[in-house]
Amino acid sequence: MSSTRQLRLGAFMRPVSIHTGAWRYPGAWPDANFNVQHIKRLAQTLERGRFDAFFMADHLAVLNMPVDALKRSHTVTSFEPFTLLSYLAAVTEHIGLVATASTTFDEPYHVARRFASLDHLSNGRAGWNIVTTANPDAALNFGKSTQMDHGERYVRAREFYDVVTGLWDSFEDGAIIRDVESGIFFDPARLHVLDHHGAHLDVRGPLNIARPIQGWPVVVQAGSSEPGRQLAAETAEVVFAAEADIGAARRFYADVKGRMTVLGRDPDHLKILPAAFVVVGDSIGDAQAMRDRLDSRVHYDSGIATLSSTLGHDVSGFDPDGLLPEIPETNASKSGRARILELARSRQLTIRQLAAKVGSYAGLAFVGTPVTIADQMEEWLMTDASDGFNIMFPFLPAGLDVFVDRVIPELQRRGLFRREYEGRTLRENLGLPRPPNRFLES
Amino acid sequence: MSSTRQLRLGAFMRPVSIHTGAWRYPGAWPDANFNVQHIKRLAQTLERGRFDAFFMADHLAVLNMPVDALKRSHTVTSFEPFTLLSYLAAVTEHIGLVATASTTFDEPYHVARRFASLDHLSNGRAGWNIVTTANPDAALNFGKSTQMDHGERYVRAREFYDVVTGLWDSFEDGAIIRDVESGIFFDPARLHVLDHHGAHLDVRGPLNIARPIQGWPVVVQAGSSEPGRQLAAETAEVVFAAEADIGAARRFYADVKGRMTVLGRDPDHLKILPAAFVVVGDSIGDAQAMRDRLDSRVHYDSGIATLSSTLGHDVSGFDPDGLLPEIPETNASKSGRARILELARSRQLTIRQLAAKVGSYAGLAFVGTPVTIADQMEEWLMTDASDGFNIMFPFLPAGLDVFVDRVIPELQRRGLFRREYEGRTLRENLGLPRPPNRFLES
Repeated sequence: MSSTRQLRLGAFMRPVSIHTGAWRYPGAWPDANFNVQHIKRLAQTLERGRFDAFFMADHLAVLNMPVDALKRSHTVTSFEPFTLLSYLAAVTEHIGLVATASTTFDEPYHVARRFASLDHLSNGRAGWNIVTTANPDAALNFGKSTQMDHGERYVRAREFYDVVTGLWDSFEDGAIIRDVESGIFFDPARLHVLDHHGAHLDVRGPLNIARPIQGWPVVVQAGSSEPGRQLAAETAEVVFAAEADIGAARRFYADVKGRMTVLGRDPDHLKILPAAFVVVGDSIGDAQAMRDRLDSRVHYDSGIATLSSTLGHDVSGFDPDGLLPEIPETNASKSGRARILELARSRQLTIRQLAAKVGSYAGLAFVGTPVTIADQMEEWLMTDASDGFNIMFPFLPAGLDVFVDRVIPELQRRGLFRREYEGRTLRENLGLPRPPNRFLES
Repeated sequence: MSSTRQLRLGAFMRPVSIHTGAWRYPGAWPDANFNVQHIKRLAQTLERGRFDAFFMADHLAVLNMPVDALKRSHTVTSFEPFTLLSYLAAVTEHIGLVATASTTFDEPYHVARRFASLDHLSNGRAGWNIVTTANPDAALNFGKSTQMDHGERYVRAREFYDVVTGLWDSFEDGAIIRDVESGIFFDPARLHVLDHHGAHLDVRGPLNIARPIQGWPVVVQAGSSEPGRQLAAETAEVVFAAEADIGAARRFYADVKGRMTVLGRDPDHLKILPAAFVVVGDSIGDAQAMRDRLDSRVHYDSGIATLSSTLGHDVSGFDPDGLLPEIPETNASKSGRARILELARSRQLTIRQLAAKVGSYAGLAFVGTPVTIADQMEEWLMTDASDGFNIMFPFLPAGLDVFVDRVIPELQRRGLFRREYEGRTLRENLGLPRPPNRFLES
């Protein structure tokens, strides 16, 4: 194993491409996001490329955007994370399977149980992306007339995490003894009742499934607001960050790892992976031309709707060629909104320009050759801007194939990325410790 | 295709054997209930035997029984249904995948979405076993201090069914057009918002997944109480019945199909499949000896606990050699309780005898040779006692292998069971119509 600092690579696969124009790119699979045979092939390609994890974002509603934009979205129909990832568990061997589950609109007993089941089915490859669900339309699908307040969602998320991890510890490792002779299937002294009573949740337990292979599935988090960063520092083992430039990324990295030190956690026990949109060409100009061609497939209606949705405020009525006016504070995701406002301010973009940027992809992008992309990744890794990346592909399957066939070998040549999986589990591949059982801590 | 009336066969696979002694039988896999490689092999064997469906019961708690019995139970750790069945979708091609989901402790948006996703992943093989969850311990895992009243649970179940089926209809068949040229991914005129507001549920929709392959996954129901029968007549397409003798089964069959006629439903559009525990031997004596050997593996502590749990009343304090005293009415499952009370009354069994019966398996059992078992199945089928069976295996894998290798061919020889799957979907194999989209009904 190399002694060089190692990149960790996730693949952002729901939607299979975040780019609104992806399904219209020449040669792309228009149904890539909702064809399990295609997705199986993509997962196997990622595994061939030794990716750490297949990552599924999630939404608990059809996206709340005007129908003129919605009708152009290839994400409107998607698989549910646990069903798709369990299917993929049967057709892959090594890659991690990270599902998003909401702490606002689900029950901790269900969530703990599904992740434990996925972890057993996949032989220790499950990860839980903790989200609080920002989309206010989701509330209407779950019997609530309004979305829970942002701060309160994070309070509940923290309690939810405590309950889920407590339920995973219900059975100690090795509690299931299956002694055929005596007829004792498990040792009752090694079964524990959580009996949680808190501000948001009352859950007795025990969970009706053995402790996960990994002890706990890997805990992933994405929010970058103040409570999001604190939750990450307290609980996360992987953070999907969203900073688009290296300076901001270094500040985020230092802030979250610093919070861990304050809390007494080893900063190495959390991997910070910014989302990175990667377009690979034979030259920088070639890659940029591919990106321009892709961006040209995004309709203005899509761009303005994505902008409104990210801001949590309808901006379609403003002058498209004017600057963005003051937007009131909302209950939407803080991090997405802040990113747009920063972009609008720093580069003085008009609403039309912002819409074009956001409708295609406004975040961190590496557009170049395998060598320039590896250069950039290496710089981020070596200067404490990240521990790796969560890769977004421009279109499928070609955008993924070229990454695996050309960028991965370049990273391997530099000793920055594994040639073979190091361990059996996602946790082992990421170099994360196995959590002790809370009922055994003294 | 044969013109003879056809048997439909489900396999009751959670637990893989309902029999408490199964994991201790010589040659059995002690970990059959919780080893996905074993379960994959069992599912593939069922498919080779042309079974209609792999059926997963479910529990939302560790079973509420005294620890001296619980520690002997091989069901204490189990996979969660959607994760296991999605895994199996990847390694099977034809067999139906029936998951249990609770209308009391889950959200209709989640349930609709997971079944739709499983249906798409399996190319039209999903079925929903609607349960209201009788186990009072489940309530404590979901923030409730007491279990909802039996009658109220069924009122909620009916409303829940309306919402789930309404959500499945959100997108019309064919709404996803993916017109690369124009950039229109779906036709918004064919997307519908349910906007349900009822006594128990408020759910706006639409669901964020295309209409299931089957229109709706097959709807399965098991309750045999008065509200359970009525719910079945109104909504179910498969009923897992529990009558242990042919006379009671004929009365149940006539009652439920009669209710359908009253409601204007075609009685052929519901298949009644009693649970049947099947032990196959070279002679009746041989099969009976296998059953006795299996029953001898059940500890008294398991039997008395199962009896208490089924009655919803702790009977461990009564004289084991006395008759069962009057047991107060409870909030537990009505059908299980009634079966025991009938058995106790009609055969004047002591508590010890009842515990031995219930702890092994007290329901309908076919114990004999392939010929005598086929004779019994044929009699049930031809005299309107059932449309087939939901088979329970005594131990795994041998109890399943012998059924597929010896009983299935005997049924096929008589023209009572398919030699090849008739259709692509579970619905087609069961001979059930595809439901129209409610938003298109005039």
